[in-house]
Amino acid sequence: MRVLVVLAHPERRSFNGQMADRAAGTLLELGHEVELIDLYEQRFDAREAAWHYPSRPPDNAFDVQAEQRSASDEGVLPEPVASMLDRVEQADLIILQFPIWWFAPPAILKGWIDRVLVYGRTYSSQLRYDRGRLTGRKAMLSVTTGGGEQTFAHNGRNGDINLVLWPTQMSLHYVGFEVLPPYVAFGVSGDRADPATRAKLSGHLSAYSERLVRLDELAPLGFPKWADFDENGRLRPEAGDHNLFIRQRA
Amino acid sequence: MRVLVVLAHPERRSFNGQMADRAAGTLLELGHEVELIDLYEQRFDAREAAWHYPSRPPDNAFDVQAEQRSASDEGVLPEPVASMLDRVEQADLIILQFPIWWFAPPAILKGWIDRVLVYGRTYSSQLRYDRGRLTGRKAMLSVTTGGGEQTFAHNGRNGDINLVLWPTQMSLHYVGFEVLPPYVAFGVSGDRADPATRAKLSGHLSAYSERLVRLDELAPLGFPKWADFDENGRLRPEAGDHNLFIRQRA
Repeated sequence: MRVLVVLAHPERRSFNGQMADRAAGTLLELGHEVELIDLYEQRFDAREAAWHYPSRPPDNAFDVQAEQRSASDEGVLPEPVASMLDRVEQADLIILQFPIWWFAPPAILKGWIDRVLVYGRTYSSQLRYDRGRLTGRKAMLSVTTGGGEQTFAHNGRNGDINLVLWPTQMSLHYVGFEVLPPYVAFGVSGDRADPATRAKLSGHLSAYSERLVRLDELAPLGFPKWADFDENGRLRPEAGDHNLFIRQRA
Repeated sequence: MRVLVVLAHPERRSFNGQMADRAAGTLLELGHEVELIDLYEQRFDAREAAWHYPSRPPDNAFDVQAEQRSASDEGVLPEPVASMLDRVEQADLIILQFPIWWFAPPAILKGWIDRVLVYGRTYSSQLRYDRGRLTGRKAMLSVTTGGGEQTFAHNGRNGDINLVLWPTQMSLHYVGFEVLPPYVAFGVSGDRADPATRAKLSGHLSAYSERLVRLDELAPLGFPKWADFDENGRLRPEAGDHNLFIRQRA
């Protein structure tokens, strides 16, 4: 497999950085090709904006989808979006490594989604889900949380982890990825000098390695397909439960 | 009231820009003080990062919460975060105006949350929800969607709008805001030269004005309070349904 690991953490020596290194190391040992992109090292500009498209007529109103499509069609997507999207298209698996901040990815990763999942090139109104342009590829989130697992339940302080991850996972599914179950390292906090903290983090790294070794065995999450929606954009009654599309309360 | 409108759209002439202007105009007419912050005009850097804290020891590992707290304690929060947070603290109501991109706010607004809701100053482990430092203030989302209202149902293509907005609204609640019901302008798409499109957008502007006139009558969303959680971060059974905390399927 060709694997792309996208790291979104402002401190390269953080536990998120270690998890990204663990993914790269483990997958390399298994014989895969691995590339790691560190969005902070690249100072990736998270803001989709007119200033990325210098050749556009400056007086025209800036429309994100129209601009992305025309830039892609004309081969003038801005860097580093163009090269990142090339690598995404060439990958069999992408792994997004990030901490959960405010029930969502850090802005730098949200901006990566806003800018790299280019309209026209990765999806269109008729090319979504199992018809998306990135079908045939897998994606997986690997995330860390400060709160413990019990707080990410449907009745926990931080909400059901499946709902917290839903916007990001749904976005990947939208453009065609098969989304593998996320790896969630809960409770990543505490003093690294404390042996109990070190043992917990070490346990996460080991469990993540084991997960990476058996990626082939994992069934993707049960998101709906194009044909599961009717002409009004509603799930057909016969489409099945899709309980990971919108997770029920309990 | 003192009102702060935060606009997050890359095109000032967009419908989001018009909605922000409508809020400012209507609230001014009602006798309120209004300030509008255009995040794109300011080229607000969405990325929380070590480079915003030039006086920190550069060899220390960068820890977001520790850095935010110490910068706030020492009065060295970076600009424009410091002045934006001052304005948030002085406001009685903040309105966040943005389009939904990928089931979430644009990265520039997620970064505003990541950076401006400063740890230590707006919340801490013991100061959250109704104990958050920004209690006594109201917040409201005003959003636009491309998809129609029917697609934002629990069984729609785009998911329950309450779940899509949950991470952002929960973040505001987390630091103490009373969160008013959102104003959602569904189906903002189509050719502006088309009379039907223009009528739809005009209808949204009128409905939004009516909403703004009766803000005082609106009950805030039913998020849990500090005392509703037990020591494990789970909602107590007697805490009530809180169906807008995590919305049930139907």
